[in-house]
Amino acid sequence: MDTVKYILSEDKMPTAWYNIQADLPTSMPPVLNPGTGKQITAADLEPLFPKQLIEQEISQQPTFEIPDEVQSIYRQWRPTPLYRARRLEKALDTPAKIYYKYEGVSPAGSHKPNTAIPQAYYNKKAGVKRLTTETGVGQWGSSLSLAGAFFGLEIVVYMVKVSYRQKPYRRALMEAYGARVVASPSDETEAGRSILKEHPDSNGSLGIAISEAVEMAVQDEQTKYALGSVLNHVLLHQTVIGLEALAQLEMAGDYPDIIVGCTGGGSNFAGIAFPFLGAMLRGERDRRKFVAVEPAACPTLTKGKYTYDFGDTAHLTPLVKMHTLGSSFVPQGIHAGGLRYHGMSPLLSHIVNLGLIETKAYGQIDCFAAGLNFASTEGILPAPEANHAVKGAIDEALRCKEEGVSKTILFNLCGIAFGSTSSFKKMLDANSLFGS
Amino acid sequence: MDTVKYILSEDKMPTAWYNIQADLPTSMPPVLNPGTGKQITAADLEPLFPKQLIEQEISQQPTFEIPDEVQSIYRQWRPTPLYRARRLEKALDTPAKIYYKYEGVSPAGSHKPNTAIPQAYYNKKAGVKRLTTETGVGQWGSSLSLAGAFFGLEIVVYMVKVSYRQKPYRRALMEAYGARVVASPSDETEAGRSILKEHPDSNGSLGIAISEAVEMAVQDEQTKYALGSVLNHVLLHQTVIGLEALAQLEMAGDYPDIIVGCTGGGSNFAGIAFPFLGAMLRGERDRRKFVAVEPAACPTLTKGKYTYDFGDTAHLTPLVKMHTLGSSFVPQGIHAGGLRYHGMSPLLSHIVNLGLIETKAYGQIDCFAAGLNFASTEGILPAPEANHAVKGAIDEALRCKEEGVSKTILFNLCGIAFGSTSSFKKMLDANSLFGS
Repeated sequence: MDTVKYILSEDKMPTAWYNIQADLPTSMPPVLNPGTGKQITAADLEPLFPKQLIEQEISQQPTFEIPDEVQSIYRQWRPTPLYRARRLEKALDTPAKIYYKYEGVSPAGSHKPNTAIPQAYYNKKAGVKRLTTETGVGQWGSSLSLAGAFFGLEIVVYMVKVSYRQKPYRRALMEAYGARVVASPSDETEAGRSILKEHPDSNGSLGIAISEAVEMAVQDEQTKYALGSVLNHVLLHQTVIGLEALAQLEMAGDYPDIIVGCTGGGSNFAGIAFPFLGAMLRGERDRRKFVAVEPAACPTLTKGKYTYDFGDTAHLTPLVKMHTLGSSFVPQGIHAGGLRYHGMSPLLSHIVNLGLIETKAYGQIDCFAAGLNFASTEGILPAPEANHAVKGAIDEALRCKEEGVSKTILFNLCGIAFGSTSSFKKMLDANSLFGS
Repeated sequence: MDTVKYILSEDKMPTAWYNIQADLPTSMPPVLNPGTGKQITAADLEPLFPKQLIEQEISQQPTFEIPDEVQSIYRQWRPTPLYRARRLEKALDTPAKIYYKYEGVSPAGSHKPNTAIPQAYYNKKAGVKRLTTETGVGQWGSSLSLAGAFFGLEIVVYMVKVSYRQKPYRRALMEAYGARVVASPSDETEAGRSILKEHPDSNGSLGIAISEAVEMAVQDEQTKYALGSVLNHVLLHQTVIGLEALAQLEMAGDYPDIIVGCTGGGSNFAGIAFPFLGAMLRGERDRRKFVAVEPAACPTLTKGKYTYDFGDTAHLTPLVKMHTLGSSFVPQGIHAGGLRYHGMSPLLSHIVNLGLIETKAYGQIDCFAAGLNFASTEGILPAPEANHAVKGAIDEALRCKEEGVSKTILFNLCGIAFGSTSSFKKMLDANSLFGS
């Protein structure tokens, strides 16, 4: 069956990121200083981030120009392809049309370089020498390491211990790019040491790894911190995904009724969804269905509370209002390490709270089964995180079949599983996906 | 620094493969039946291959049309990008221009689907139900498994035992596509059992795995055999790489002086080189330099004999004239498993013997160092096999620097290392690449 691929010519690549804050009916709740209870200022964030990223973090302006240097590096793999999943549609025997945006073509195999590159660029411009960060399975860590190699920045990655053990190959990729990778919790930081004292066998968590990276960043003037999701400027950078998809669907003469993505910290979901959500908020399009899919083992949006909480375990970050399972929550060691975060992007949480987005949680076995279905029809083995989006899209397509309606579904295939096939291997060995 | 990428529009994709046999000054030596010593006929090959592939194997016609169904699947990832390696050039401080064709964007991460798809297509058309094959690290096995999933063919892969152990993730990918993967030598075949009897701890080799796959194929009418390199029709299919590169370099207003590829069975090298070599043979271009790079641990072209030998260890194949280290040669377990073959494509061997191609062998440490240099400048971590081509290209660029000449170098980056970063991990652990 025909491959249907929509390639955007380079001259149609987005030249600005989209800031959904400009179109929201109500503003986000303020970020608070935990000491004073007062709203934090730009100056409070300066030990962590360069000024241009802080401006993007707090601004309400509708777009930010993508710097030429960033556009030039984006062009190495962007525009990414948009595919119509015809073989999957046929296998499901659904009247729905399924499109997917494929971010796995980046050198690091995921959407994460979309924000790693501009973050490294702005830091380099500000004279920063070293960036610290956290990573789950290493998709973010490898992307920031790549960006560090391009811009000549030293990168230190605190990698969640369970993933450090499960994914030695991702660690090797980061090291190949020249980064230093530390299993978290580590004894390099106060935060790490205090966790290890209480829980010497701790598997780690993104919350703990963030504490370690932040602690190291604030101690040194030439060192700043980079986060791979959650923050407004990260979500801003990822909108390049949805902006491209908009243009590609226009080429296809189509527009999605349902937009699906997986959520850990919220950035890939926001990247695909916000440009379409913005068109709806501005009244250019009717109401559309947006579905955020998360793992049942870390059900932040579906079971978390929408309240003020810390972004990290050691309480070094400001207080943000978000859906949270509590900053001390340590999820099970599921394979979708990128989705194992106790909190959620405050911007996305706010939008969920406005009733604009539906949320779903699935168990990992169901998600892996969906990923295998996708691999054998479309040929691409999704990363464990992306399996959640695949599962969400398949469920919507099956609902269309039940209801006998032909809707257009768009989902973000945020990463490929080359670096994570260990997960499939383990699932296969456990024999939990394959019956007789 | 600017990313320089040349994207071929889909309407300029090659619609026919190029058969270099039409342009050679002398024909290849005949393939012989080992029993009778006589030239084999098309009929002799029918237990193994469908008729259309046999026709491509023995024909002298200059081109073969690419079937629409194959073109349609190619379009999922083709045309692949051609890049100018500006950051690498700068790091080497060379006056040379370095271009690379990047085949790692295929769903299996390498050039192998270029031939897996048409092989599965012709077999399916001929009513075949099952294909057997061998694989080294699994790049070929995963590509044929992918093609099997697309065309509804059962795939059985005999995987060289050392790689089966080193690369469990590649095995998982094949299984995710629905293939059955067997560590070779196995006790499923006479060939495997006889090796195990003599060498119970055998690491396996491509020659042994070929014997097992061939043995299984000839025993069943509905089963045929597929080979991932070496044969004329495989090299034919891979010429899509060089044909695209020709068109992309024309866009760049450039033409290579030096063409570099790595060689295991010869197919990715032939894929990039033959269209350029053909232009030279037809007198359309002056003499160019072609460099085939192989591992020092399996120096087939540089140290092998050009003589009649078997393609497999159990001597089930016909006799072919090729560069060979002997059909019982079992190379060390180097990481570039795809380059661990005792023989070489007879077509490429013939061309080397005609003096048209230079050959080089490098140790794996030097190749990994080149790969790391490439990763930190260009951002892509090459597969261990592709490291050899990178090393060859870097050496040519450094020679240009020494001689103060600006030549144009083209090399084939045949695969990405996502599935093989285990290798880098091991090199890193051994600490043999990283000094103070």
